[in-house]
Amino acid sequence: MRILLSNDDGVHAKGIQVLQQALSQIAEVTTVGPDRNCSGASNSLTLINPLRVQQLDNGFMAVNGTPTDCVHLAISQLLDFTPDLVVAGINHGANLGDDVLYSGTVAAATEGRHLGLPALAVSLAGRDETHFTTAAYVTVQVIKKLKSHPLPADQILNINVPAVPIEQLKGIQVTRLGRRHKAETMTSATDPWGRNIYWYGSLGPELDAGEGTDFYAIANGYASITPLQIDMTAYKSMDRLQTWLEGIRL
Amino acid sequence: MRILLSNDDGVHAKGIQVLQQALSQIAEVTTVGPDRNCSGASNSLTLINPLRVQQLDNGFMAVNGTPTDCVHLAISQLLDFTPDLVVAGINHGANLGDDVLYSGTVAAATEGRHLGLPALAVSLAGRDETHFTTAAYVTVQVIKKLKSHPLPADQILNINVPAVPIEQLKGIQVTRLGRRHKAETMTSATDPWGRNIYWYGSLGPELDAGEGTDFYAIANGYASITPLQIDMTAYKSMDRLQTWLEGIRL
Amino acid sequence: MRILLSNDDGVHAKGIQVLQQALSQIAEVTTVGPDRNCSGASNSLTLINPLRVQQLDNGFMAVNGTPTDCVHLAISQLLDFTPDLVVAGINHGANLGDDVLYSGTVAAATEGRHLGLPALAVSLAGRDETHFTTAAYVTVQVIKKLKSHPLPADQILNINVPAVPIEQLKGIQVTRLGRRHKAETMTSATDPWGRNIYWYGSLGPELDAGEGTDFYAIANGYASITPLQIDMTAYKSMDRLQTWLEGIRL
Amino acid sequence: MRILLSNDDGVHAKGIQVLQQALSQIAEVTTVGPDRNCSGASNSLTLINPLRVQQLDNGFMAVNGTPTDCVHLAISQLLDFTPDLVVAGINHGANLGDDVLYSGTVAAATEGRHLGLPALAVSLAGRDETHFTTAAYVTVQVIKKLKSHPLPADQILNINVPAVPIEQLKGIQVTRLGRRHKAETMTSATDPWGRNIYWYGSLGPELDAGEGTDFYAIANGYASITPLQIDMTAYKSMDRLQTWLEGIRL
Repeated sequence: MRILLSNDDGVHAKGIQVLQQALSQIAEVTTVGPDRNCSGASNSLTLINPLRVQQLDNGFMAVNGTPTDCVHLAISQLLDFTPDLVVAGINHGANLGDDVLYSGTVAAATEGRHLGLPALAVSLAGRDETHFTTAAYVTVQVIKKLKSHPLPADQILNINVPAVPIEQLKGIQVTRLGRRHKAETMTSATDPWGRNIYWYGSLGPELDAGEGTDFYAIANGYASITPLQIDMTAYKSMDRLQTWLEGIRL
Repeated sequence: MRILLSNDDGVHAKGIQVLQQALSQIAEVTTVGPDRNCSGASNSLTLINPLRVQQLDNGFMAVNGTPTDCVHLAISQLLDFTPDLVVAGINHGANLGDDVLYSGTVAAATEGRHLGLPALAVSLAGRDETHFTTAAYVTVQVIKKLKSHPLPADQILNINVPAVPIEQLKGIQVTRLGRRHKAETMTSATDPWGRNIYWYGSLGPELDAGEGTDFYAIANGYASITPLQIDMTAYKSMDRLQTWLEGIRL
Repeated sequence: MRILLSNDDGVHAKGIQVLQQALSQIAEVTTVGPDRNCSGASNSLTLINPLRVQQLDNGFMAVNGTPTDCVHLAISQLLDFTPDLVVAGINHGANLGDDVLYSGTVAAATEGRHLGLPALAVSLAGRDETHFTTAAYVTVQVIKKLKSHPLPADQILNINVPAVPIEQLKGIQVTRLGRRHKAETMTSATDPWGRNIYWYGSLGPELDAGEGTDFYAIANGYASITPLQIDMTAYKSMDRLQTWLEGIRL
Repeated sequence: MRILLSNDDGVHAKGIQVLQQALSQIAEVTTVGPDRNCSGASNSLTLINPLRVQQLDNGFMAVNGTPTDCVHLAISQLLDFTPDLVVAGINHGANLGDDVLYSGTVAAATEGRHLGLPALAVSLAGRDETHFTTAAYVTVQVIKKLKSHPLPADQILNINVPAVPIEQLKGIQVTRLGRRHKAETMTSATDPWGRNIYWYGSLGPELDAGEGTDFYAIANGYASITPLQIDMTAYKSMDRLQTWLEGIRL
């Protein structure tokens, strides 16, 4: 098996290094990641400037772009083969609920899926970096399963793993995305020159973290796996919308 | 009615200026956009650096960030009121099918929706800028309808309008997202110093542009309105996934 | 006379707008400036990415680059004539002593000189923006003198003007660069996510602000004019410059 | 002896790695460099955004800023001691004549000098990276001499070394800066979307490369050492420097 590995924290992050080592036990791994921390990059593309690739001493390739750029560039230009799987992570911190919309790690997996490949995103839900190995272990187990249970063509898997030793992990749950409150997450300040600046601050508190959500699974010591679909069409609303559009005169 | 207007082509683009003028006929409009072209920004957030706001002579506010930053910053910090609606556009060029995943214009609307407000994204499907007025006219008509037909809380509208005079517009169709081929869209080149660079190139050809899609509507002279949902959970796959996960040993 | 005007605070800054209006009284002015604030840009060149130009409604051209880029691009590509003079400013804040090494405004003038044109940089030594007109007035007077007293081929003029009404200006002095203490100008902090960050802080206190320096002139209510060789005070030109300056009436 | 080492090609460049190894034979070396290629950065400062530091596996520190930022940040915040010397390089490519104005490598040395430390910049005048060792050898020899022949407080040394094996190096010459033609160095093109872009192109041809210049020395197989006052050739130091250079054995 050949795996393309990327992330959004950048090629120098510990999470991608731990995952590269774990995946190398079961596959041939090519690692192409951003040269800088791209947390919050979502599916952004670098359209204004060209991309450049730097080969690092450890065999990783660093790209001056976003996670989506890395996956797209690797598959369309850098690799002389088509990988069997795209893996993104291990993200430093959780990607739960609404986070997935902004996550560059989830976006890297999404881009792999757009380009026709099965893909999954992995995040460590916690700050204790000694437990990246737990997330790596879960990832390897899921990948082994994928061989006999292929993903639908328009879906990826979003995996979050609690930052605990593997023997404390309660299990794995299939979940839906929860929801965060979004208000009040930005702060204003002044820079040292007295000019107004604004920073995104803490993540919002949980709004929907009920049973069945990814938040709930993590809070109870389980890894969560949420299947995500790529097509955003709200099919259920189409008929209703058609009805009221009929009143518009052009 | 009070409208927050943003885009991804930047505050200096013609599309946002035409739309600002049209919306000002029916509402009080506050315009907060990126100071640079952010096409392809998707839902990216500026997390590493602080944001700054510049008040321009025409009353617009320019932010050194992404479309998502603009909407988030405006609602949480810049405005002393809560707008009734978030509008993003008029995008220079179509946002059809897979494009929505990467579009900063669609992302601006999505951010408005995340923050609890009805939102819509508008794009001109074509290059002839004299027809921004057609897209602006359609937008105004849709907004008038929204008053009596509110959007569901987890949806936005993605509107594309052909670049034709209003009298040539065939009508408005409710559509689903089509799909593009993604392969072969990147090119390699060398910069003037002989170093390898890579550029995203042309959009991929259409893969699913059949009847019912936004591609099909535009190709036939109609404006398309696609309702988009924000929650990406692939609910239909959850049971199946649960089944095969049970075989994983931890 | 045809003047190329640039700055480092960006095309939207008040200083460049006031100067553009003043210079338009005596010359045909083309304004090409950075699309963002580039304070501290020094002579930096944008070598990794390509440059782009945007024509603004007020006739200015905005470049996604540095002050040096703006001047180089204008002269080598954008203008279909060779300007007679390059003017940079009015900078928001002083450019005294060591500041000139880091100043993008001084760099814009330097680039003009490198490309074979007489050039001068103008800064308002103070924060009260109502007095940009004083700096603009002094600049116009100096330019008038330049016609009959050309600058040596390897020199530019660095002009600083106190932020006072023109009638309070004591006069103009030819000066040498003073010197600042550089220590203790950086501060450490944490961003809202608890990560270490570092900011440049206040300018260092003056180390050499004795009589004859630009610091001294400004502190005593005079505008300072320091002739700069491409890189440092051109002492040999000071006497000659003093002679012709005496002819300027304020 | 304790040396602060930086560059402008970035911490991952081969030149800084070769120099770090060579300097470690004679001193305790701390390496703090930009996380990206900053060629052409000149003395630019990052004033709008905060700086961040990343500790790499090889002991180097990477800063998301310019060479000047790296040196300033290291001395004022990162080091708990004051280094004895600042060294910048080995630059990939020559820094001759006017190049020094734009060079981030020369700027890194300049910043060290501004902060009170002796400093030198080293560049490989050629593309054959196998000969970085020649430049590293020359640098070590010069540093050994500096102990007994301290630099004046307002000067740095700018060293260029031909890309040849050490045994082919003709010697070391004290030089003055030559001069390049600047015209015709920019090219216009279109990006894959048909939009106008501009690139800096080849370096200008030599305008003053006569005997005594750094260009001349390199062209004739010698390493050049040009003493720079903070901003220009320090002619008065040339004789004295020549004297002690004669003691260097190659």
